[in-house]
Amino acid sequence: MAAATHENQTSNLPLLLLHRSPKYNLSFFPFLHTKYTVLDPHAAPPHPSFATLSKSARLMLCVGPSTLTSDDLDQYPAVECVVGSSAGLNHFDLAACRRRGILVTSAGDSFSDDVADYAVGLAIDVLRRVSAGHRFVRAGSWPGHEGYMLGSKVSGKRVGIVGLGSIGSRVAKRLESFGCSVSYNSRKKKSHVSYPYYDNVVDLSSNSDILIVCCALTDETYHVIGKDVMTALGKNGIIVNVGRGALIDENELVKMLVRGEIGGAGLDVFEHEPHVPEELFTLDNVVLSPHQAVLTPGSFAALEELVRGNLEAFFLKKPLRAEVGLD
Amino acid sequence: MAAATHENQTSNLPLLLLHRSPKYNLSFFPFLHTKYTVLDPHAAPPHPSFATLSKSARLMLCVGPSTLTSDDLDQYPAVECVVGSSAGLNHFDLAACRRRGILVTSAGDSFSDDVADYAVGLAIDVLRRVSAGHRFVRAGSWPGHEGYMLGSKVSGKRVGIVGLGSIGSRVAKRLESFGCSVSYNSRKKKSHVSYPYYDNVVDLSSNSDILIVCCALTDETYHVIGKDVMTALGKNGIIVNVGRGALIDENELVKMLVRGEIGGAGLDVFEHEPHVPEELFTLDNVVLSPHQAVLTPGSFAALEELVRGNLEAFFLKKPLRAEVGLD
Repeated sequence: MAAATHENQTSNLPLLLLHRSPKYNLSFFPFLHTKYTVLDPHAAPPHPSFATLSKSARLMLCVGPSTLTSDDLDQYPAVECVVGSSAGLNHFDLAACRRRGILVTSAGDSFSDDVADYAVGLAIDVLRRVSAGHRFVRAGSWPGHEGYMLGSKVSGKRVGIVGLGSIGSRVAKRLESFGCSVSYNSRKKKSHVSYPYYDNVVDLSSNSDILIVCCALTDETYHVIGKDVMTALGKNGIIVNVGRGALIDENELVKMLVRGEIGGAGLDVFEHEPHVPEELFTLDNVVLSPHQAVLTPGSFAALEELVRGNLEAFFLKKPLRAEVGLD
Repeated sequence: MAAATHENQTSNLPLLLLHRSPKYNLSFFPFLHTKYTVLDPHAAPPHPSFATLSKSARLMLCVGPSTLTSDDLDQYPAVECVVGSSAGLNHFDLAACRRRGILVTSAGDSFSDDVADYAVGLAIDVLRRVSAGHRFVRAGSWPGHEGYMLGSKVSGKRVGIVGLGSIGSRVAKRLESFGCSVSYNSRKKKSHVSYPYYDNVVDLSSNSDILIVCCALTDETYHVIGKDVMTALGKNGIIVNVGRGALIDENELVKMLVRGEIGGAGLDVFEHEPHVPEELFTLDNVVLSPHQAVLTPGSFAALEELVRGNLEAFFLKKPLRAEVGLD
């Protein structure tokens, strides 16, 4: 990376400002240095003209869910467009972008199929005890015909989807094919959708056996799944979270799972990643995974294509894909 | 059970002969002793008139996949009908039943939704490393952004179904909703089905990324998945088996998985249950479970209803459900 940066330092390649938390590297975007003069605040050694050039860079690539604040933007007065590479939006100060007239894009649908597939996988795993059965076999055991944990049917269950966006609608389509019925909650009723709509999550939860949480994390949706929602779901209901950890009051979730007050959970995201509550490790009705719902080569290839296309489109004044509405 | 048997021994309830391996008990059929004079060869103490009464019993309930041979039938000359309670047929000597003009029923569709749901769950788990991620988290780990095992997309994969019966057709419907394409092999091309048909499993396998094995085990299908089929599937293909263990040459499967010559496997059944090959225990691309695809209260309730109905129908000379064609 350092060598490439130095080769490019006097080139005429267009300026591309990176914004990233040091924990997110550039391995997903191998093409950057051949097409742009990359200004990376965490490069070692730093670009010798970073301080000057970063003031005139018009295009920013925000790597993964790196937090982008109004203060960050103050340092880069020429930025007109932020190309994002994450499906979430909660890491952006969208109000600050709006005030400055900055265009913002996201990962759009690049991950939606994978996340929806994964959500369904978690739901089946929790209900049918797939991972628990695997542990059982690996421990050298085989069930007698009484006393072995029984799973619960997937077919025929009532699915409640929290956030019927590009992921939620894909989850709905998949679970309908299992003979499940679908209803949903979202900010507004969607006129083109025939699934029953609930304007609050408690009512949705009261009428669901499987609650799938896949909305964006915003100030409004922080802890949208609280004790009241989980109480409404009840001891036979399960929760699947493929959105963001802080959509659920995790403390409350852990307590209710430990006490058997809800029926199970499939969690790919956690409120304080990488921390995962250890109380959940021994529960056969809980499946945990390390924020991997998007981790496939197929998703990365789709994301790389989207990001590459948006970076090019900005300089060519062509339309951007997956632009985030800021009003 | 013993108490109930003795109460009934002089009753006028109709005779019901049980046929069961001692490992299968009657807990799924709590209604039997209130409706029938149950003749159970493994009852302790035995029914005092078992030897006599069993010669005149016209109806047999075969519990689970207990092997029923021509020699067994020789002992019970009056049997006209065998009500089965298993989805498979390989435990019955169907030719012997045919020669004697005995009607045979099976569990029919009672388990089909559950087995299809489970097959899809195994496929997602293997491809997206759900159980492996769960182990990873439970070990207290969290992936860095390089080096973590990547899953493989489910959406868009080519699914090959071996046996497009009541389970296989349900698997097909479910996986189509994930954007997978479906083709199949079965004894004959099905005229009412539009999925591409392959008349041999090697060709099906060559054109599949996910091979789902869900046909009945018969003399013809023993080891239907052999080395040639797995070689055709290749190192990126995965196999899911929810049929019977002996449909696959398990020795060969283990070798090819250990060498990485096929991409993974989700196995709910094994050739020599309860033996499970330990070489598979440490592979992250293999998910194992203890023949649990049918283990839900919902399936048991459906089965109990089917069995109860068939036993009653026999004495009422009404049509049987899930009758097995014997010609």
